[in-house]
Amino acid sequence: MAIQSVGIIGLGLLGGSIGLAIAKHCPDIRTMGYDADPEARNAARDRGLVQTVCDTAAAAAEKADLVILCVPVGAMGFAADAVRSALPDGVIVSDVGSSKQSVADTLRAALPDITVIPAHPVAGTEQSGPEAGFAELFEGRWCILTPPDDVSETDIGALSEFWRSLGSKIEIMDAQHHDLVLAVTSHIPHLIAYTIVGTASDLEEVTRSEVIKYSAGGFRDFTRIAASDPTMWRDVFLNNKDAVLEMLGRFTEDLTALQRAIRRGDGDALHELFTRTRAIRRSIIEQGQDV
Amino acid sequence: MAIQSVGIIGLGLLGGSIGLAIAKHCPDIRTMGYDADPEARNAARDRGLVQTVCDTAAAAAEKADLVILCVPVGAMGFAADAVRSALPDGVIVSDVGSSKQSVADTLRAALPDITVIPAHPVAGTEQSGPEAGFAELFEGRWCILTPPDDVSETDIGALSEFWRSLGSKIEIMDAQHHDLVLAVTSHIPHLIAYTIVGTASDLEEVTRSEVIKYSAGGFRDFTRIAASDPTMWRDVFLNNKDAVLEMLGRFTEDLTALQRAIRRGDGDALHELFTRTRAIRRSIIEQGQDV
Repeated sequence: MAIQSVGIIGLGLLGGSIGLAIAKHCPDIRTMGYDADPEARNAARDRGLVQTVCDTAAAAAEKADLVILCVPVGAMGFAADAVRSALPDGVIVSDVGSSKQSVADTLRAALPDITVIPAHPVAGTEQSGPEAGFAELFEGRWCILTPPDDVSETDIGALSEFWRSLGSKIEIMDAQHHDLVLAVTSHIPHLIAYTIVGTASDLEEVTRSEVIKYSAGGFRDFTRIAASDPTMWRDVFLNNKDAVLEMLGRFTEDLTALQRAIRRGDGDALHELFTRTRAIRRSIIEQGQDV
Repeated sequence: MAIQSVGIIGLGLLGGSIGLAIAKHCPDIRTMGYDADPEARNAARDRGLVQTVCDTAAAAAEKADLVILCVPVGAMGFAADAVRSALPDGVIVSDVGSSKQSVADTLRAALPDITVIPAHPVAGTEQSGPEAGFAELFEGRWCILTPPDDVSETDIGALSEFWRSLGSKIEIMDAQHHDLVLAVTSHIPHLIAYTIVGTASDLEEVTRSEVIKYSAGGFRDFTRIAASDPTMWRDVFLNNKDAVLEMLGRFTEDLTALQRAIRRGDGDALHELFTRTRAIRRSIIEQGQDV
């Protein structure tokens, strides 16, 4: 079975990019979309994010083979409720949330008789909203599927094929493992960036104007990450609490060890770590995950 | 007095970029350079980083109006020793180190009768070595001068004019205040980035391959910073210990508060911080310190 029509609920950065990527790569797939914000629906019409912008979530879902919920993790339950009565037979419901166990539990409870395959395209920018999407967002990026045990290989294959056609590479993973991996590669980096930007803007000895002027020394890269959508990220931390707190504990231990090395003037320990971290960067470049 | 000849000691990213920027913006200024590494001297000749690559530091300094020490902060004393006997009358000695109080103390002790004006161009990339420099590195970036009280306005003016001619904007600041400001805007961001990349590469539950594959979720931006020159950064932390430990304490307090908000499920506290940090980003873009 190949996906022939897609309903996109939520037309922000991710939802809008999916619509544009379909138009670019799979012009035969029909696209319907909905956003709870009327202004976002107007912007979606103006930008042509989907072929049909609908005035209800149900209308965007009722003729779809695949319904993708592109809303903050904390709104998944509401979005599922809004489409439930309209979902056609044989539909696959998926999502793009950054944490997967809580989304799996929520959607399973809200849509007990529906095929649900949670997914997470590991791609994004610090921009948000219907103006932010672009067709190339998923090209060369990984999309992680976390299918429950009772989902058929056929349905997993159909969703995989859909994401591959947008340029993604597919990985199948257990939801809990996903949450641990992403806690390290995404959630903790965001938490740290938000924290240091907050710390810097609250100092008495250093003015905010100085922080901005001299940000080229490293700080500005953190501000980029810390400009990401507040609601999305609040929901990520509330919904991946255990893995985030676990990984935050490891990070804090390591930071404390480094703090001690600085206090003691242990240059060898610093140099050893600073050398080791370069190798990771090289691998990321080699594997095309940054330029 | 206008600078007419510059001796550059150390031909890595910063030293090489100064040479190239002079060639681009001030072709009448003569440039001499030296690097302790013979391979770097060969690379500097091949790339034309300076007009004359000398085989000793003294030879690069002996006919210069301005000698700029472009070596790691921990090597400033050695570099000063190497040029001392060759320095002509009326020369200005400066540097590009990322911490200023310790450099000021070191150079004052090594060059007691010489005009020394420590400086810090707040510009750089994660690259290092003689291949890394480029003429545009300083354009639109701030260069902070931390002149001691006994330096004349004429000499401060000459050095300011030199950096302006390379495209920099000038700020005059007390060395201690510089060290506090840069601890926040540069040193702590680097320390945090090095730490999280180290933490991620040492996990047992998440493989290094997974960390690399899914780095597009935020982690990859930290790996870029954590690929910076290890020797340079070791020296920064050893030489700006007090300010770094002070600012690290503030950061850790704020991170602990956020950790508690996550544990308690306090979404409002998270959302409030995540919203506030966006404003800083906007200011950095508006002031041209990032794109």
